[in-house]
Amino acid sequence: MAKNWAQPVTTALRADSQRIADLDTSSTPGFAGDKQQGQTLLSERGVVLSDLQERLFANGRTGDKRSVLLVLQGMDTAGKGGIVRHVIGSVDPQGVDHTSFGVPTEEEKRHDFLWRIRKRLPVPGQLGVFDRSHYEDVLVARVHELVPRAEWEQRYDKINAFEREVADAGTTIVKVAMFISLDEQKRRLHERLERADKYWKFHPGDITERGYWPEYQKAYQAVLERTNTDYAPWYILPADHKWYARLAVTELLIDALTGLGLDWPPADFDVEEQLRRLDAS
Amino acid sequence: MAKNWAQPVTTALRADSQRIADLDTSSTPGFAGDKQQGQTLLSERGVVLSDLQERLFANGRTGDKRSVLLVLQGMDTAGKGGIVRHVIGSVDPQGVDHTSFGVPTEEEKRHDFLWRIRKRLPVPGQLGVFDRSHYEDVLVARVHELVPRAEWEQRYDKINAFEREVADAGTTIVKVAMFISLDEQKRRLHERLERADKYWKFHPGDITERGYWPEYQKAYQAVLERTNTDYAPWYILPADHKWYARLAVTELLIDALTGLGLDWPPADFDVEEQLRRLDAS
Repeated sequence: MAKNWAQPVTTALRADSQRIADLDTSSTPGFAGDKQQGQTLLSERGVVLSDLQERLFANGRTGDKRSVLLVLQGMDTAGKGGIVRHVIGSVDPQGVDHTSFGVPTEEEKRHDFLWRIRKRLPVPGQLGVFDRSHYEDVLVARVHELVPRAEWEQRYDKINAFEREVADAGTTIVKVAMFISLDEQKRRLHERLERADKYWKFHPGDITERGYWPEYQKAYQAVLERTNTDYAPWYILPADHKWYARLAVTELLIDALTGLGLDWPPADFDVEEQLRRLDAS
Repeated sequence: MAKNWAQPVTTALRADSQRIADLDTSSTPGFAGDKQQGQTLLSERGVVLSDLQERLFANGRTGDKRSVLLVLQGMDTAGKGGIVRHVIGSVDPQGVDHTSFGVPTEEEKRHDFLWRIRKRLPVPGQLGVFDRSHYEDVLVARVHELVPRAEWEQRYDKINAFEREVADAGTTIVKVAMFISLDEQKRRLHERLERADKYWKFHPGDITERGYWPEYQKAYQAVLERTNTDYAPWYILPADHKWYARLAVTELLIDALTGLGLDWPPADFDVEEQLRRLDAS
């Protein structure tokens, strides 16, 4: 087990049949340390993650078809961007395929909802990161009835079939749903309104969305019940504590990469022969 | 002027009419400090770069069309990957569009050489990074006569026209040609053959390419003479010292971003009104 953890992070956070409405968003499941220990650990474990990611990248360069995909979901201010900066930021940018999915463009709307997602799947050796994803199509689309119920109802099965296909093609999928409390969101939105360097992150619509909190919880609950599979598991991440959220996602990625059993790729050439050639060159 | 620099990095490295063959690849133009000062400075300046990049990103989110594109060229082992990891790695992955251009695919070969490049241009607010680029089409393509002379001869003008168009559309282009000595390359290739965790970076063809060193120098010389424009300047980077190369590229990017005069975007909403709405929510 990873240092300072009383329980493996995968066990502590794996979605089961929890009620989202009952979640203590300020909890730190599985972690036995305090904030300071968590922060120290984050930088230590970032090095481990970076090493594992380089192995994935190296193997991708030498024919291995595998990749890893981190799917991040969460309400506004839940901290998805912080995960990207502080967790994904610890690995080599060469090995990262990051995509932030916003409101679909007109072209994207003319296609099936998975069309734009497929285009951004990580290629072999890459660590893909989706900041929001196809789950928006059963979250905001459901809450605001952007499509008829009959349509979003079918999407859960379509998502499962899609993720099965992606997993079968060699992508390890790690889905993280980040939850903060309504109060914590208020605090974070306040900060965006109080600092001129944060205004750009604020949209008046963010406040409007707060009025739909129960509907979003219901929509998230359905996602967690209907798309939590062995080949694409959901992890429920209490995210009021940013340090914990970042550490937990680091550990989830370390677990996923460790599971691939990655060694450095062997030489596909005769090392001695190449050393002789090199010395003669 | 930046701390520890005797001369602005842009002046010290700007391509003029230098002979590549005469370049001292172990020099550290413009920098007045030593290795340790350089390394300390790199982490300090990485924070400055990261702050500027976030401003670029923020402005991109609020309608500003500008972006920055770093083009990295250099022989095998010149350290392009190290620049990506250690310089680009200091900024938020959300704001980076990184592309590594390898041997063109069959589909890419059927198109004009700039086709695949255009597709990867940074969108507004992004820091684009090209690890190799359209310049391969006048470097390896010229050295190995992959296309007839009449064809690559035309490409310099095409490249200038293309870069003019990209610059006019709001992209600040920074082109860096990294040079190491033939001996330094031998040392670096040796390392790749001596460490099992580096084998994947080695290709027997890298040694073959060493036999074409003078031809590559000539091809680089032509690039620097024919595509060094005000709107897409070349910087000649002696790269035997990795710490210097990384620091210098950091400073070049800081200079490019500073030149954009980026403030935090103003609020496009009434802050007081939104605070009231938030408190009532």
